[in-house]
Order: sequence, then structure tokens, then C-alpha cells
Amino acid sequence: MSQFVYAFGAGKADGDGSMKELLGGKGANLAEMTSIGLPVPPGFTLTTEVCQAYYANNQQYPTGLEDEVNRALTVLEERMNKGFGDSQNPLLVSVRSGARASMPGMMDTVLNLGLNDQTIQGVITQSDDPRFAYDSYRRFVQMYANVVKGMNGDVFAATLSQKKDDRGVQLDTELTADDLKELVGEFKASYKEHLGEDFPDEPLQQLWGAIGAVFGSWMTPRAVTYRKLHAIPSDWGTAVNVQGMVFGNMGEDCATGVAFTRDPATGENYFYGEYLVNAQGEDVVAGIRTPQPINRTKHKEGDLPAMEDVMPESYAQLANIREILEQHYKDMQDIEFTIEKGKLYMLQTRTGKRTAPAAIKIAVDMVSEGLIDQKEAVLRVDPDQLDQLLHPSLDPKAEKQIIAKGLPASPGAASGQVVFNADEAEEQTRLKKKVILVRIETSPEDIHGMNAAQGILTARGGMTSHAAVVARGMGKCCISGCSDIKIDYEKQQLTTKSGHLIKRGDFITLDGSLGEIMLGDVPKVQPEVSGNFATLMGWVDQFRRLKVRTNADTPKDSKVARGFGAEGIGLCRTEHMFFEGDRIQAVREMILAEDLDGRKRALDKILPMQKGDFLGIFRAMKGYPVTIRLLDPPLHEFLPQTDDDVSELANAVGLRFSEVKEHVEHLHEFNPMLGHRGCRLGITYPEVYDMQVQAIMEAACELVKDEGFDIVPEIMIPLVSHVNELAILRKNAIRVADDVCERFGVNVSYLIGTMIELPRAALTADAIAREAEFFSFGTNDLTQTTYGLSRDDAGHFLPDYIERGVLKKDPFVALDQRGVGELVKIGFERGRSTRPELKVGICGEHGGEPSSVAFCHEIGLDYVSCSPYRVPIARLAAAHAAIQEG
Amino acid sequence: MSQFVYAFGAGKADGDGSMKELLGGKGANLAEMTSIGLPVPPGFTLTTEVCQAYYANNQQYPTGLEDEVNRALTVLEERMNKGFGDSQNPLLVSVRSGARASMPGMMDTVLNLGLNDQTIQGVITQSDDPRFAYDSYRRFVQMYANVVKGMNGDVFAATLSQKKDDRGVQLDTELTADDLKELVGEFKASYKEHLGEDFPDEPLQQLWGAIGAVFGSWMTPRAVTYRKLHAIPSDWGTAVNVQGMVFGNMGEDCATGVAFTRDPATGENYFYGEYLVNAQGEDVVAGIRTPQPINRTKHKEGDLPAMEDVMPESYAQLANIREILEQHYKDMQDIEFTIEKGKLYMLQTRTGKRTAPAAIKIAVDMVSEGLIDQKEAVLRVDPDQLDQLLHPSLDPKAEKQIIAKGLPASPGAASGQVVFNADEAEEQTRLKKKVILVRIETSPEDIHGMNAAQGILTARGGMTSHAAVVARGMGKCCISGCSDIKIDYEKQQLTTKSGHLIKRGDFITLDGSLGEIMLGDVPKVQPEVSGNFATLMGWVDQFRRLKVRTNADTPKDSKVARGFGAEGIGLCRTEHMFFEGDRIQAVREMILAEDLDGRKRALDKILPMQKGDFLGIFRAMKGYPVTIRLLDPPLHEFLPQTDDDVSELANAVGLRFSEVKEHVEHLHEFNPMLGHRGCRLGITYPEVYDMQVQAIMEAACELVKDEGFDIVPEIMIPLVSHVNELAILRKNAIRVADDVCERFGVNVSYLIGTMIELPRAALTADAIAREAEFFSFGTNDLTQTTYGLSRDDAGHFLPDYIERGVLKKDPFVALDQRGVGELVKIGFERGRSTRPELKVGICGEHGGEPSSVAFCHEIGLDYVSCSPYRVPIARLAAAHAAIQEG
Repeated sequence: MSQFVYAFGAGKADGDGSMKELLGGKGANLAEMTSIGLPVPPGFTLTTEVCQAYYANNQQYPTGLEDEVNRALTVLEERMNKGFGDSQNPLLVSVRSGARASMPGMMDTVLNLGLNDQTIQGVITQSDDPRFAYDSYRRFVQMYANVVKGMNGDVFAATLSQKKDDRGVQLDTELTADDLKELVGEFKASYKEHLGEDFPDEPLQQLWGAIGAVFGSWMTPRAVTYRKLHAIPSDWGTAVNVQGMVFGNMGEDCATGVAFTRDPATGENYFYGEYLVNAQGEDVVAGIRTPQPINRTKHKEGDLPAMEDVMPESYAQLANIREILEQHYKDMQDIEFTIEKGKLYMLQTRTGKRTAPAAIKIAVDMVSEGLIDQKEAVLRVDPDQLDQLLHPSLDPKAEKQIIAKGLPASPGAASGQVVFNADEAEEQTRLKKKVILVRIETSPEDIHGMNAAQGILTARGGMTSHAAVVARGMGKCCISGCSDIKIDYEKQQLTTKSGHLIKRGDFITLDGSLGEIMLGDVPKVQPEVSGNFATLMGWVDQFRRLKVRTNADTPKDSKVARGFGAEGIGLCRTEHMFFEGDRIQAVREMILAEDLDGRKRALDKILPMQKGDFLGIFRAMKGYPVTIRLLDPPLHEFLPQTDDDVSELANAVGLRFSEVKEHVEHLHEFNPMLGHRGCRLGITYPEVYDMQVQAIMEAACELVKDEGFDIVPEIMIPLVSHVNELAILRKNAIRVADDVCERFGVNVSYLIGTMIELPRAALTADAIAREAEFFSFGTNDLTQTTYGLSRDDAGHFLPDYIERGVLKKDPFVALDQRGVGELVKIGFERGRSTRPELKVGICGEHGGEPSSVAFCHEIGLDYVSCSPYRVPIARLAAAHAAIQEG
Repeated sequence: MSQFVYAFGAGKADGDGSMKELLGGKGANLAEMTSIGLPVPPGFTLTTEVCQAYYANNQQYPTGLEDEVNRALTVLEERMNKGFGDSQNPLLVSVRSGARASMPGMMDTVLNLGLNDQTIQGVITQSDDPRFAYDSYRRFVQMYANVVKGMNGDVFAATLSQKKDDRGVQLDTELTADDLKELVGEFKASYKEHLGEDFPDEPLQQLWGAIGAVFGSWMTPRAVTYRKLHAIPSDWGTAVNVQGMVFGNMGEDCATGVAFTRDPATGENYFYGEYLVNAQGEDVVAGIRTPQPINRTKHKEGDLPAMEDVMPESYAQLANIREILEQHYKDMQDIEFTIEKGKLYMLQTRTGKRTAPAAIKIAVDMVSEGLIDQKEAVLRVDPDQLDQLLHPSLDPKAEKQIIAKGLPASPGAASGQVVFNADEAEEQTRLKKKVILVRIETSPEDIHGMNAAQGILTARGGMTSHAAVVARGMGKCCISGCSDIKIDYEKQQLTTKSGHLIKRGDFITLDGSLGEIMLGDVPKVQPEVSGNFATLMGWVDQFRRLKVRTNADTPKDSKVARGFGAEGIGLCRTEHMFFEGDRIQAVREMILAEDLDGRKRALDKILPMQKGDFLGIFRAMKGYPVTIRLLDPPLHEFLPQTDDDVSELANAVGLRFSEVKEHVEHLHEFNPMLGHRGCRLGITYPEVYDMQVQAIMEAACELVKDEGFDIVPEIMIPLVSHVNELAILRKNAIRVADDVCERFGVNVSYLIGTMIELPRAALTADAIAREAEFFSFGTNDLTQTTYGLSRDDAGHFLPDYIERGVLKKDPFVALDQRGVGELVKIGFERGRSTRPELKVGICGEHGGEPSSVAFCHEIGLDYVSCSPYRVPIARLAAAHAAIQEG
């Protein structure tokens, strides 16, 4: 039979720090600290297996547990040199839950357990402070009733309040020991009244009550929901920690405090912490008294006296423990301590949470200090955290008035005056104003305005709606799918559910990382990419196997991405180029042309512009591969929709309104996502793809010939569902490309490949690979089709799905490994089975999301491609994946 | 070494009828007829392996071929008792291609090969008819130049025309032997001029030229394309048949004819055929002379004399051969014969094509005659053919003026006056007029008009657009996606590309089987479901393993389907019920309600109506399972779209226009197919599904309790992508269902299952099966998502794809077994792995398409479900699949 109870104390422990699964995080660390000789109040831990057995066996404790607890209690009594229930020298204990991961909804802490009308006498005697003793007693009754029995605390607050009124005093501290003694009685009476039973006076009964409450709290709805949301298996169970009480509030030689072994905000290597004299742990957190710094480092004029000065011996001991802990755990620790009558006790240590800059600094510093190696340093920084470093963020100290919430579509913070259309965004920006572009939804025609605006707010659309994708590509703050707001274009205003009215020109602030919309211009802090960041990223690149490319459509984006370390372009969307400046006019002429000749005339106008784009992009990416996707969206996306715009276009191209209108209507699609787009356009209008291939190859040939570049363009054909489509278009592309090479008299190699973005393409990848030299998984569209879920419409219900746990994560954010991921795997394996040298990457939004990057590494892809601002995240995630595979 | 040349003649043959792969269809049957003692002109066949070797070896003939041909030629000379190139007694031959399957684009026939200026003399002497001889000669030169050398026939036609002008005559037959002799010289001169070489006078050179042309024609673009479209492997190759010439045009004791051993139109068991005295085979087909019947059966006043009377001996011989062939082949044969100077020769026999009624009658008759067994009879009828029997069709003799073509969306024929909206269709029908409803596209609101109309014509939408699916469900003729027409609702007219203007009230006729739109009211023939049909279907049901259910939404459809033999309902779409009559009003109230209470009030109005529907359907399907799908389409489908209709609705429900409009806009979706529909609605608005489950269970309980029915309703939850969705909705459904049972005091079993219609559902079917008692593959939606192809938008390019062979078949018509089919298989296998007793069927449109039914049989599904009018097709296809698996 396994051991149910693990004791610690007096420098010895049954367990150790590695046993988090069995003892929970808290219990394991208490054992570990005890073992390495730190002063920890003795105690014992009921293992998580007890919890598992409890639930497996109809909420009965396993046989033998009681005996083990009794034995552990005896040992504890010995180690504390006190007796549980002893009226002379009573042992009091704390009872705390402790799962593997800290978990809201779990019972937290019961202090002073063991007090009753007999043992209180011993406490009075020993502390020589009846007021302290009774205050502890009444707090215990209150805590037990509330935490263990779930009684509403209001009753006790009211009784306490009444007592102060009766005594004519204002503060709790003004009540006398007798007042408090009376309160104990009154509290117990309330307890009986509400719960229908006497308050348990027997310490053992109290202990089992508290243990039962911890185990019971494992299955509260809140805990169950939390576990569901965080994928924590419910059979993990929780441990229970029973520990001898020490008191930081027994006089002026007592204190309690919390500290970090380094500054968790900056990572600076100094001992950062706060303490309070004559106080209990909760007082430090509660904020009633202002805590004092533990040392003189960073001490400022007017600061309260430091522990270093007030209790120099205890401080020296603590500072020494800090060294021991860092040397032992080799990471920054978050600790709790208590000083009882001049004696220091450690109550907790755990790995300290830290900001992204701190994480980087600590990791890099610890390498210099020889504590960890570079591999470990890389693992110490969470890829998701890096996002903080790559966008400006709101000043955490600023005051914020949140008026609505939407989806955190693109991180960062932005403030500006509200405008409701793209043209105005552009115009106001030209006039040196900062604006936030607010739209019901955005379309490719809004890109100039999005580019001009500080941030974008849309009422509709999901995390990968047009607004969200484009904004992330631009590294621009965006909140999408904000159903809290109602936009009235006519009145040029929006109203929020919270009742605020925002007019054109009013200032608002967006927090794209949280999805919060605030009134006014909230101050921001600029990101700082320090030298440590560069150092760390250098290490990162040694460890990863996966290449990281970027999704970029312009020379400007390409340069940004290169700056972030992108190793080429995985997705250059040529259609974005179609919208720039006056090109859209030529594009529309092409669409409206009645015949092939008309289309060719219009395409001839576009050709030099496309070629110019490619020249710029190839130059920016010199030496790195560039994958260019041929035209993808349905043609109607390029045509105006409102009658006014149609009319304007008709005038511009010299057609009748009705003719243009008819064309627009003819091109209308019920489900454009599943319509006449991608390679289907290439089959219907081969001249469009021919022009694009010509532009790509002319740019490449020119650079190879005139500037000695080494370029192998990767021409990517989108939305293939059947190999025949690719075979036809590949043949066309080869004809055009070879023709260009011949004209230029240079031999430029090129690859022709395809996006795998439809389930059928993945399933038939063996056939498709016959015609493709590379695959790029378009996981955005693949997610849409695999789930049957439009990213633009998902806003109607997806947020609710996530909140209710129907789906754990937004599949447009983190790759759905079970469904979409299986198709990626199938496509990859089948493609490679036909063509072992097939180049394979992923260019959906998932290419910049850590768990998805890890998946791509695991299944063996060659690269991921993501928006420029996520390139460092992808690099780090790729390194994590490589290191963790061992 | 294998044998390259197979001879036949004089009652002996190297090959036989089973060797179609080696000898081609024609060669194998010539060998077979020879073997069974029929009078076949001797000859020999170069095998398909020669063709394969020819292409495998850089278009060189295999070694030894020439020798074998020479030997075969010697045998042929002996058998014909003539000499190849002999000027006294010349052997003339025909050369024909002959692949396994007959194939357009292949070289057809060269006759009279062996003629030259020497051998012509022998022909003159033997025929004693110089005119006949020279006419044969000039035809041979012309045929050889055209068929073998690919020369345009216009030159020869012009020369012939000139000759007639010179001679001052009108008809070819008025030219003399000398004129024809001159023409031979002139034709040869043209040959040299155009081809730059002399016409080959050497018979062996002619023979090898013709053989080379046959092999060469295997790789013509037309043949290659045809093979691609019909999945014929190009390595099959073709055979070449060289056969001694016999002449039906050598005098009044000569004749030629074609016949079917039974009537191919009706199947009647009489000898049906036509012949011409003194003619060659091509004359019968060419239609210059009117062919005469071969016998007196069905002889009518004024008919030309029958062969039976004119050549009684030959006829008797032929009639005997007919018996021999039917006894031998045990199927109706299509034969060609020639009589040369009173002697009968058989030139070809093959299985005769026939109409659906004929196929059924012949199959049933042959069973009575003991020729075949029931299993064979079932295989003799092509399931696709049955469609002809189940819809009225155009009189094949009627004159038709085709003005446009669209997609053949739902078969049958219909004529009526054009109307442009559903209300008018209904009204005009009430006034006893027949109408064709013409819409740009249809929506569920048009259903009453579609139901009233004779047929439906839409300008947009594919084979499975709303119009197409609903029309097929109604068994109503429909042409969809007709981009040839332009509809002007305002002017109430349409114009066609061909330049026709059709106004409201004009008559048009639709042929839904061909997609043709015709002017006026073209006469039709009504379908005849004869007793033989019933007999055959009785046999069908003995052999099939797959069950066949129907997709039906009303008691009326259910009854029709039962009449066609449906064994339950596989898909009852409850939303169709939402549109009927005044229900739509309550549905809209539900959608517009501000809160749960409002929605519940509206649902309370719908409940009794839904319950009534289910009562009717359960009664119609008494004893058979009924699968009811809960609400599937997005809510906006139920709301009006035009401002006028919005306004009307606002008045009706007492809301402001702007409120309703805002609601409509809020519900707008970019890609409704991928939007807030199916189970996603059930999660958001559980009260809707609760109402539907309640209606189903109340209807079932009532029938069980009051009428002693035995019902196990199958409640189907649509569009599940993640098992969590199903788990939530299943729990809800069980709660409601059990509550109803309790209220009624009866214990009605029910099943809860789901549609597998998204790739993710198929991939995660093992998880989903934990919550599902049955699966129904919704292959329409599964095809849409697997291909990323909206069926409503496919009309923009899918017809072009099919025509160009990019896709072999419309995947919405025939299940794409490679892609979508793999997901069906995966889903089926994973589902059964979790729950071995899982009931699995398919309810997409594919359930009524024979190749898809065969696939469902092969992978082991329990049933298919299809529209009522396709139930017999599915039954027959299922029987074929079962029989063919052996």
C-alpha cells in the first residue's frame, strides 16, 4: 500500500521538490526547502492520491489514512514541541489545498486551526497577549465557517460592526480582548444558527473538517469549469498541507513578508520584497497597512524603514536564503516568510512570475552567472510573452475607463480620434491627427485607411477576419467583433451597451491585447528591445530546426520582417498589391472587360506595377526565398458595392451604371469563401496568372542579370482541390516563365507549388505532389473548411463557444491539432511519399502561435511563416519545440 | 513471344468473344461468330498488344509482326480464294479500328483497300460492272486520303461537283464509268498535290498505311481527351481488323442492312431491322435512300416491301442467325449484315443499346424464356436509365427550337407560361394555368411557387443549388445555372444569348434531363411504369443488402416515397416545415424576439404545427424508421431581404422598420454556409431544439399510446464539428424527450445521432460516436467543405470544369470517392470503432446516384437515403453493387 501522508520538518522530509504530482506544488516545495536546511515550520502533506481514492471510492477516505494522519500529527507535535488540543502548550496548524497547478475555485487557507475554549488558554499564556489570542480565535471561527462550511461572511461582519457600535469605537483594533472574547461566542452562535450544528470544538474534528473541505473543493463547479478550460484532468486531484502555525503578529519582534529573489518587473538582480512588522500574511496583501521595503536598494526619500535596518539579523538570514534558493532552484523565486519572535520561517517558495523583459534579463543574466546554460535560458522565456515586447502597451499605472470589450485581434495599444471611414482616416492622418478607424467590418478597400489609422475597431468579424489579419500583418492594434458597440454611419457615431455615445472626433483608446475599448487618450509605454533580447534570440537560432519566414506583401513589411529575423517570405499575397493607389482602376477595367483582349489591355497596365513590387520585395529579401501566391480572392472583392461607388466607377470606365451594376450582380456569390476564387480564377482567366508569372519572372531575371542576385522565386497556386487544376496551371506558368528567361537570356530557376488549404487537397496530396515542388499549408482556410466555419462570421457565436468551453481555444488562433492538424499531417506525409524532397511549410496565422509552431516542428515541416511582428515569437517557439523533443 | 495476329474465317478462329481486351470488341465478336458457324467474311485482327508495343517502342512495330501479317494475308487469300494485288481475281479488304470500348476520335473504316489500276480490271471482269468498279475505286482513293492521311474531303467534293457540272448532270449516279475513271485520276492528282507524295498503288503499302493510321488515331487529341473523360487507360490500345470485302452493292441480288434482335425502343420480342437492296452499309445510315423493313411484323400500309418478301431465303437465314445469336449471347444484339449475290454475310454483332422500358421488358422476358436468371436480369438494367421512367419526357418526334442551355438539375420535361415570382406561380396555377417559374435563384420562400409550377428555371446556382435540390425532392423538372439567360424582374422578361426575348406569359418548355430550354409548348410523353418494372424491382430487393430510405419533409412526399419502395426516412428537414403557410410568421416573431421569453412565446405557436407534421409523417411511414434533423439553416434565411418585405414584416409584428432592418443586418453573414447554423443555433438558442424535440416526441407518444404504433424516432443534430457540441445538445434532447414520455406515461425509445457533414466530424468520428447512436453522412455539405466549393456558386465555373475534364464528374452529382469518399470511410470506420452497433447511412443527394450507392455498399453503410423519385434507382444500384461483389 502506498504512503498517504508525507511529513516534513526538522531538516528532514519524506518528499522532495520533484514530487509535484503527488504532493502538489506547495507541498513539494515545503519538503524541498526543509531538506536543504531552510527554516520551515514542520508539517505534513496528504497526497493527491488520497483525493483520487476519495473520489474513486464514493467520497470515502482510504483505509489507513486516519492512522497515518494521527502518526504524522504525533511527529508534528514532537517537532513543534506542542500538543494538538493541549490547553497548556497548544499546537495550532494551518490547512491549505495544493494541486499541481494553482487553481481558482479551490479552498485556500484555514489558519489557527486547533483553537477552542481550552487551547485558547495556552495561547494566552504563551503569548502573554489575550487580545492577540482572542482575535486569532474569532478569526479562526469566522474563517472556518466561511472557508470550510461555505457560510456567508456578511453575518460575522455585521456582528463585528454591531460590536464596534456598541463599544463606540471605529477600528477593529480598538476592541478589547473581552470584546473579542464575546465576539467568539457570538460567532459560534451564528454558526449554529446558520448551519444547524455546533461549532466543532474538538481540534481533530476541526482538522478532518478542513481536510474534507479541501477535497470537496476539488469538485466545486468553479474548479471543474476552470479545469475544463485549462485542460487539467480532473483525476489529478489536490493535496492537503497541514503545517504548524507560526505568528508574525505576536509583537514588534514579529513580522511577515513576501519577496522575489529578483525584480519581477525588470529582471534586475536585486532582492525585491515587502514586509510588515507585527502582522499576518494576509495583511501584506490586503493593503490596509502600507508594506515596507525589505532592503535599502532602491530606497527612496520618504519610504518606510527597510527590514535591512529594522531587523538586520533576520534580513541577513533572509538574504542568505535568497542565495541558497537561487543556487538551488536556478530560477527567480517568489517567497513568503514570517518572523516569530525574531526567528525566521519560510512558508512558501515557488518560481516567480515575471514580465517579458524581466524573463529575458533573468535568463540572460543567469547564463552569465553560470546558473543555467543557453538552452535552459531559451526555455525560460515564454514565446507568448514576447508579444508584449513587440507592440506599445498601455501604461499599467494609467487610469482606464472601459466602455466596451471585443476580441483581442491584434495586440498593442492605440489611441486616437474616432473616424468611420478609410478615406477620412487617411486624410486626418495627413493632417497629423491620430485616428482610430471604426467600421462595422473592413474590406480590402479600407486598407489605406487601416494603414493610416493608429488602430482599428470593428463591430463584426472574428480573430481572423479581414480587419484582424491585415492589422496583425501591419503590426497594428486591432479589436474585432465588438458586439458591444452599435455603429451608425449616417450619424457618424457609435453607442456602447454600457450607454456611452462616441461621436466622430472623440478620443478612444484600444488595448488590442485585452480587447478593451477605453474613453479618452490613455498613456502608453513604448516597447524596448534591449540588448538582452538580441542575445537571447541569437541563442534561440542555434537550437531551432524549423525555419521561420514571414507573410509580407510589400517591401516595407519585408524589411520589418527581416529586422525581426525572418528567413524569407512564406506568403506574399499579390492581391493586396491590386488595391494600392490607382491600380485598383486597372484591375476593375480588367474585370469589366467584355473579352480577352480587353482583359489583356488592362493587365498590361498592371504588369509593370506588379513587377515593381516584386523587385522591391526581392531586394528586401536578398538571398532568402520568396513564395508568391497568385491571385486568390474572388473578383467581386475588387468591385464597389454601393450604388454611389458603382456610379463613380461607371463614369471612370465609360460604361453605363446599369452595365457595371449588372456585372457586380453577376459576380455576386452566396459563399465567396467557397466560390470562384484561387486557382479557379486561374483556370477561367489564364491571362491573369500569366501576367503575374511574367511580372515575377521579369523582376527576378532583371535582378539576376543586372544586379547579380541569387533568386529562386517560388510561385504558389492557391486553392487547389484536384491535381488536374494544378497540372493545367503549372504548365501555363512554366510556359510563361521559360519564355521570360529566354527573352532575358538568363536561366533563373523557379519552383512551382501550391497551398494546401482544402481538405481534399490534403487527402489527395500524393497526387498533387506530382505537380508541386512545394506545399504551403494555408491553415486559415483549412480551418474554415475543416470546421465548416467562416472566420468572418464566427463572431456570432465563437466567443460564446470559447467562454463556455465548447471549444477550448479559438481554432483560428491555435491550430486545432486533432482535426485540422490531422489533415496537415496527412497532407505532409502523402506529399512527401510522392516527392521526398518536397519543401513544406505553413503560412496560416497559426505560423506565429507557439503551440501551433511546436506542432509544425513535431510533424517535421520545413518552415512556418507568420506576420512580421510574430517572427521572434515563432523563432522562440521553434527553439522550445526543438529543445523539448530532447 | 506472343501472337500478334488472330485470324478468323471458314468456321475457325484463333480468338473468341471473351478476348475483348486483346482483340477489341469488334474483333472478338467476329471471331466468336465465325466459331459458332455464322457466315462471316474471313479476316484477321492485329491485337491491342501490337498497339501497346508500338507506343512503348517509339512507334515501331514489334519484330515479327510483318511476317505474321503476311502469313495471315496468305490464309485470307486462300479462304477468300482471291489474291491481294491479283489483277484477275483481286482480294479487297476493309480495315477498321476496334478498341475494347467504342471510342470517338478513332479511325473508323477504310473499304475496298487493295484497289489499283491493275486490280480494278479484275473487279470489272468479276462484277461485270465497270461503273461499280470505278465508283468503288474513286471512293477508296477519297476515303484513304481522308481517313488514313487526314486530307480535307472538300477538295474531292469540289472535283466531283465540277465533274457533274462538266457533264451537265445533277446526281452522282448519272456519271458514267468513264467519268468515274477520270475522277480517280483527278483524285490521285489532288492527293499528290496536297500530300506531296504519290497515291500508294501497292496494296501492301496501302494496308500498312491503313494499319499505321489506326494506331496513330489512338493518340489523336480527341481520343486522348475522350479517354481522360471516361477514365479509359491509354495503355489499353486499339486492335486493327482486316477483313475480306463483300459487296452489297453489286446488283439487285445484293443488299445490306442493320437489325436488332428485339425492338430496342419497346423491348418487344420481334426481329426489328432495315435493309437496302444494292447498297453499301453507309447508305443505310446516310439517309439518302429510305431503308425498307426486314419483315412483315408491324408492316403498315404504304411501307416499302419487306426483305422477308423480297429475299425470302436470305431472310430465313438471317432470322435463324438471330435465334442463334440470342441463344448464344443471351442478350439482345445489334447486327450488321450484307448480302452479296444472294449470299448472306454477318459483318458485326454487339449488345444492342435500348431504352429503359425496353431494357426492363427484355430482362424480364429473357427470364421467362429461360435465357437468363433473375440476378442477370437485374444487372441488365442500368440504374441511371431508370430515371427516364420516373418523369414525363419530351416526345422524341416533336420539333424543338432550343433557345438556351443550362444545367440538367432535375430530370423530366415541363411546359408552361413564364412567371417571374413564386406568388404569381401559385396564383396562375390556381387559375388552372400551367407555369414555369423563372428566377435568378430560388430561396426557401419560393417553395410554394416551385410546388405550384410545372418546372423551374434559374439563371444561377449549380446542380445542388436550392432550386435543384428542392426540385429533385419534388420530382419536378428543373434547369439551374442557365447563364445563357438574362432576367429582368422589373420588365418581367428574359433575354437569351441567342437573342430571344421571352415575356411573362410566353410559353417555354424545359428538358430537365438535358438542360435545354425550348420555345413554345413541346409535346410530351407520360411515363409508364409497367408490370415488368414492378417484377424487376421485386427481384432487385432480393439481392441488395443496403437499405434505401428517402429524404422527405411532408406526409405527401413520404407517401410518394413509400410508393417507390422507400424503407423509411433518412432525412426529414424540419426547416422546410417552417416556411409553410402562416408558420413563417411565428418563426419570424421568434427570431425578432428580444429575449428568451419572447422566443418561447413564438415557439409555443410553432409547436403544435410541427407536431402535426410529425404525426402525418409517422403515419405515412408506419413501421419504418424516421430520421428528423433539427433546425439547420441560419436564421436570416427566414427573414425578408427587400425593404418592402421588411416593412411588411415590421407592420405585422408591430416593430419599427428600422428595428427589423437592423435585425436583418445583424444576422447578415458573409458565408452563410459556414456560419451560425446547424447545432450552433441549438447551442445559442436551446429553446428552439427543445421545441422540436418536444414536437417529435409528443407526436410519437400520441401514436404509440392512442394508435398502438411502433415508432423509434431518430433525432438528428446537424453540423457537429466537435463532440462537445453534440454532448451538450444530446443532454438537452434527452431531458426534453424523457419529460414528454413521462407526461404521456409511455416509454417510447428514441435514438439521438448526428449528421457527419464536416471534415472535422469525419476525422473525429471516434469521439463523436461516444455521443451518437447513429451517423448520417450529409455528403452535400461534406462535398462543399472538402472541396471548398459552394454548391450555390459552383455554377460560375463548375460546368466549364466538367466540360474541360478538369473534374470528371460534378462532385455534387456523383460522390467524389477519392476525397469526400475517404472522409466518409474514415468517419464510418472511426465511428464504428467506438460504437460497433452504430447505425450509419448517407442522406446527401448522392444517395440516389448509382456509383455513389455502390460506394456506400462497398464500404459497408447500412442505408442510403435519396429523394422519393430516385428511390427505385438507389434500390437497383444497391442490388447491382451486391451482385457484383460476387
